[in-house]
Amino acid sequence: MDVDERLGKLEAKVAELADHIAILRLVASYGPAVDGLDRDGVHALWAENGSYDFGGIPLVGREAVASLIDLDTHRGYVEAGSAHTLSLPRIDIDGDRAVAVNYSQIFVKDGSGWRVERTSANRWHLARTQHGWAVDERTNRPLDGSQPPRDLLRRHRPNEVGAAAEPNA
Amino acid sequence: MDVDERLGKLEAKVAELADHIAILRLVASYGPAVDGLDRDGVHALWAENGSYDFGGIPLVGREAVASLIDLDTHRGYVEAGSAHTLSLPRIDIDGDRAVAVNYSQIFVKDGSGWRVERTSANRWHLARTQHGWAVDERTNRPLDGSQPPRDLLRRHRPNEVGAAAEPNA
Amino acid sequence: MDVDERLGKLEAKVAELADHIAILRLVASYGPAVDGLDRDGVHALWAENGSYDFGGIPLVGREAVASLIDLDTHRGYVEAGSAHTLSLPRIDIDGDRAVAVNYSQIFVKDGSGWRVERTSANRWHLARTQHGWAVDERTNRPLDGSQPPRDLLRRHRPNEVGAAAEPNA
Repeated sequence: MDVDERLGKLEAKVAELADHIAILRLVASYGPAVDGLDRDGVHALWAENGSYDFGGIPLVGREAVASLIDLDTHRGYVEAGSAHTLSLPRIDIDGDRAVAVNYSQIFVKDGSGWRVERTSANRWHLARTQHGWAVDERTNRPLDGSQPPRDLLRRHRPNEVGAAAEPNA
Repeated sequence: MDVDERLGKLEAKVAELADHIAILRLVASYGPAVDGLDRDGVHALWAENGSYDFGGIPLVGREAVASLIDLDTHRGYVEAGSAHTLSLPRIDIDGDRAVAVNYSQIFVKDGSGWRVERTSANRWHLARTQHGWAVDERTNRPLDGSQPPRDLLRRHRPNEVGAAAEPNA
Repeated sequence: MDVDERLGKLEAKVAELADHIAILRLVASYGPAVDGLDRDGVHALWAENGSYDFGGIPLVGREAVASLIDLDTHRGYVEAGSAHTLSLPRIDIDGDRAVAVNYSQIFVKDGSGWRVERTSANRWHLARTQHGWAVDERTNRPLDGSQPPRDLLRRHRPNEVGAAAEPNA
């Protein structure tokens, strides 16, 4: 292999690793933003027309998603003392699209300890934008024994990356 | 340093980072596979003769490991609503062998919240196979105040990587 | 771009990714060290004059930080069975300084399960030393509904990296 080939191969591999690290960082940014009531911080994670569906009517557009910090339920958590912890995601990247699957939990202060208020399966469809990776669609369903959250956890086929239809639609 | 040396150094460093990311992804794939009752997903994580010892008789061979999704206890968790969350691992890589140490927890739906059913120390011995990194031996012990789980957490000496004897054997 | 430029760009990018992975590994090493009562393991994570402030009088100097494994409260957790789980951090690197923000939790065996004894916001100020990345200052505050832990979660401005004053000072 000549120098040009070796450089090209390295550049591709390094770009792939950088994408992976960038997506880890994006997922790690969600909890601190919502628990810190940082509207701009949430806004910055989503693509302009990105959505967040956690049951009920999905929030569509990053303005709407960022407004979740004003929901009464959310304010109640934060006032009591809350941690939105996001687990290490399983990430699959395909060019300018990616899917990340992980768990999220909400721990809320309750007496001398914290209770586990919510434990959910999450599927994140991500897109590379001109400002870096951003959330295109995030779906979150509580792990309550029903099938929809389990479907979010399954492995996807590559051609599903960025598919419009959510697996539990 | 000439171009060839710089390229060689970069190639080695990039390969090491890629190994680290691949092992993170492997660990992140376990929870979704078992909570999603994805037998093939579990199977794909283990080496052909890999084992999983979580107390009692160890499961040996990846067919046996994958069959854990059929255990009555496991089915009970999934039917109630469960999340097997795996914490960020401390990874040490030595050529074609690696050790990862982390925590695993099982959260199970209970009333309006989730209870912490199990909190364990984990030591993963991993091997590079022709299909990528795979689990050679995983040992899991509940953190119940006894010494064996604490031993799983300790730092290992490099020559222990891939050692046949488990530290709590 | 000529070969020298391409190599230089790759070297810089790979160094940045390696820093990110090294900091992930550092954070992942904390829990196993304290739950494993591994004094040297804790010691190795901090810079010589590094500090750890988890409320009360901060521990200053890595000898003092490592001595936390002897605190009565800590010994009580470990004897009961404990897991100090650290969530995936949001990391920002600026040359030889970095800031990581994440959650930490202490799960303690209680009856047939584990209780959530503590859920905190953490801000880690890290420095590159001759032995690799090390903790310069770590601040930890329980998420109890008060403002100081929420301040630890916020995004920082780059010129705050390594700032002497903690946001909740």
